Amino acid sequence: MTATAPPTPLGPGAAVLAFDVGGTDTKSAMVDAAGRVLGLRRTPTARDAGDAAGAVAASFAELARTLRNAHPGVDVVAAGVSVPGLVDEVRGLGLFASNLGWRDAPIRDLAERTLGLPVAFGHDVRAAGDAEHRLGAARGYDDAVVLAIGTGIASSMLIGGQPYSAGGYAGEFGHSLADPQGERCPCGAIGCLETVASAGAIARRYRAASGREVSGARAVLDAAGAGDPVARDIWDSAIEALAEGIARLVATLAPEAVVIGGGLSQAGPALFDPLGERVDALLSFHRRPVLLRAELGDDAGLLGTALAARDLATARAAAAGTAAP
Amino acid sequence: MTATAPPTPLGPGAAVLAFDVGGTDTKSAMVDAAGRVLGLRRTPTARDAGDAAGAVAASFAELARTLRNAHPGVDVVAAGVSVPGLVDEVRGLGLFASNLGWRDAPIRDLAERTLGLPVAFGHDVRAAGDAEHRLGAARGYDDAVVLAIGTGIASSMLIGGQPYSAGGYAGEFGHSLADPQGERCPCGAIGCLETVASAGAIARRYRAASGREVSGARAVLDAAGAGDPVARDIWDSAIEALAEGIARLVATLAPEAVVIGGGLSQAGPALFDPLGERVDALLSFHRRPVLLRAELGDDAGLLGTALAARDLATARAAAAGTAAP
Repeated sequence: MTATAPPTPLGPGAAVLAFDVGGTDTKSAMVDAAGRVLGLRRTPTARDAGDAAGAVAASFAELARTLRNAHPGVDVVAAGVSVPGLVDEVRGLGLFASNLGWRDAPIRDLAERTLGLPVAFGHDVRAAGDAEHRLGAARGYDDAVVLAIGTGIASSMLIGGQPYSAGGYAGEFGHSLADPQGERCPCGAIGCLETVASAGAIARRYRAASGREVSGARAVLDAAGAGDPVARDIWDSAIEALAEGIARLVATLAPEAVVIGGGLSQAGPALFDPLGERVDALLSFHRRPVLLRAELGDDAGLLGTALAARDLATARAAAAGTAAP
Repeated sequence: MTATAPPTPLGPGAAVLAFDVGGTDTKSAMVDAAGRVLGLRRTPTARDAGDAAGAVAASFAELARTLRNAHPGVDVVAAGVSVPGLVDEVRGLGLFASNLGWRDAPIRDLAERTLGLPVAFGHDVRAAGDAEHRLGAARGYDDAVVLAIGTGIASSMLIGGQPYSAGGYAGEFGHSLADPQGERCPCGAIGCLETVASAGAIARRYRAASGREVSGARAVLDAAGAGDPVARDIWDSAIEALAEGIARLVATLAPEAVVIGGGLSQAGPALFDPLGERVDALLSFHRRPVLLRAELGDDAGLLGTALAARDLATARAAAAGTAAP
């Protein structure tokens, strides 16, 4: 559970705690001053229908105690908390998270009280994107989009070298219109990209079209490779919808790089090769972005959360007139 | 030609010259220290198939002479030049303009030599958008998109309070995919929004579908109002395509305001009412932008060009350690 930490790209900085809250699991870890990730583990996200935010914040206390007991020599000075859904990073609010059930919840304040630490609060996908921007595949690009394609589709944007969140509402690439004649998305809109092209949608659409059970998007890809025409259609239509969405991003935002992570990116060339070809075919004079596979894998969200905590520690130290710890 | 200047929202600042070069006409004017726009006129854009950029730059000399002769008391300290197409504002290059024929043309340097003044060089639609952001309908919004819908469709974006150009490639909203089964756009891509929903496309599509001549999008709207079903279909499909494009911008960029100018905006409520309804229907949890009509009209590009020239004058004066003129 708290085995020797693998090498990470974090490097030296403040020692912090990081909590990456997902709809199913929460990842927690300690990052020491050398940038080692200590005690990283995945536990079921705490739930309480009556007090969703309170339950999540309370769970941080137990997770923090475990980390501190295992690493008594590490003096953490800040924590990072990332959550899914709509997030107001400035006011520290979880505005809405369909899987978790809070609305306008003051999660940053709750976590600061629970942990007794200053807390950097943000959005899980933007945290992952920020890690890819600063440490992963998107580093070196000032204008880049990082897509996370798994159960759903989310994105984070770096614009002019700065993360762009628009008060928490930016980056809902998965809830942009892909098919005006499509199905209704759980979000309430029609034909959202994630109803067509997320890993979850690919598996679900295959089940509906074939009547056969399938373990996930990977199995649909395998079936397509084995000559199943239903699987081939669904895979190809997902690629086409993603390509159209990326081409539209290119026309308006003109990112230099589009980085793709999440479960679907594990398909590798079976995703990236046809996607790159289709994006290319849909563009003319536009600036063609490089299409890159995310580098930091599943832990990008946790690493980005730790980065945000370190940034907060640095800012606090600077404001207090001391050197950053 | 140089009659009493109408009131403008520019206010006091440096005295400058401004040249807004269009595919057909060039607008030129002098702005005095009080912000009066003097000698505004429209002349055919200079053309030379062998030296498109040189011809345009040379025309500035004659236009400047006329302005200076008419207003000998105004001591201009900088000039602004805006051009259409792809523009590299940092290096001062006109990268490409299909109507004018240049490629990678050093227009800023040519204009500085011709005019003997420091030149602020930029993109015509971004200049117009900048004027709407600073003086017009988009003022007060940090995240806003200004659309110019006329012969084509272009956009300029304000992100986090700053204009966003992505090296000149951002804002090609008119060349984002609207209809994957659509017609080929002159840009080379298929189904670009401006092949469906620009004022030019509405008139052209009506001619093609009805076999009847029509003077422009306004006449198509009038025909729709008079019960012409072909005109109604074309108008409605243009509104739908615009609404879908705006809804997609909202999902990813989440602007607080979408400002629409250009010829099509003159349709007023016949455009804005159904467009607002359709955008609204396509969104769910997204942040709904206010939809606003541009305020500065046809001269927004020239005003934005003058603003850029004034910014340059202020920066030069600051760098020289003197008060801004």
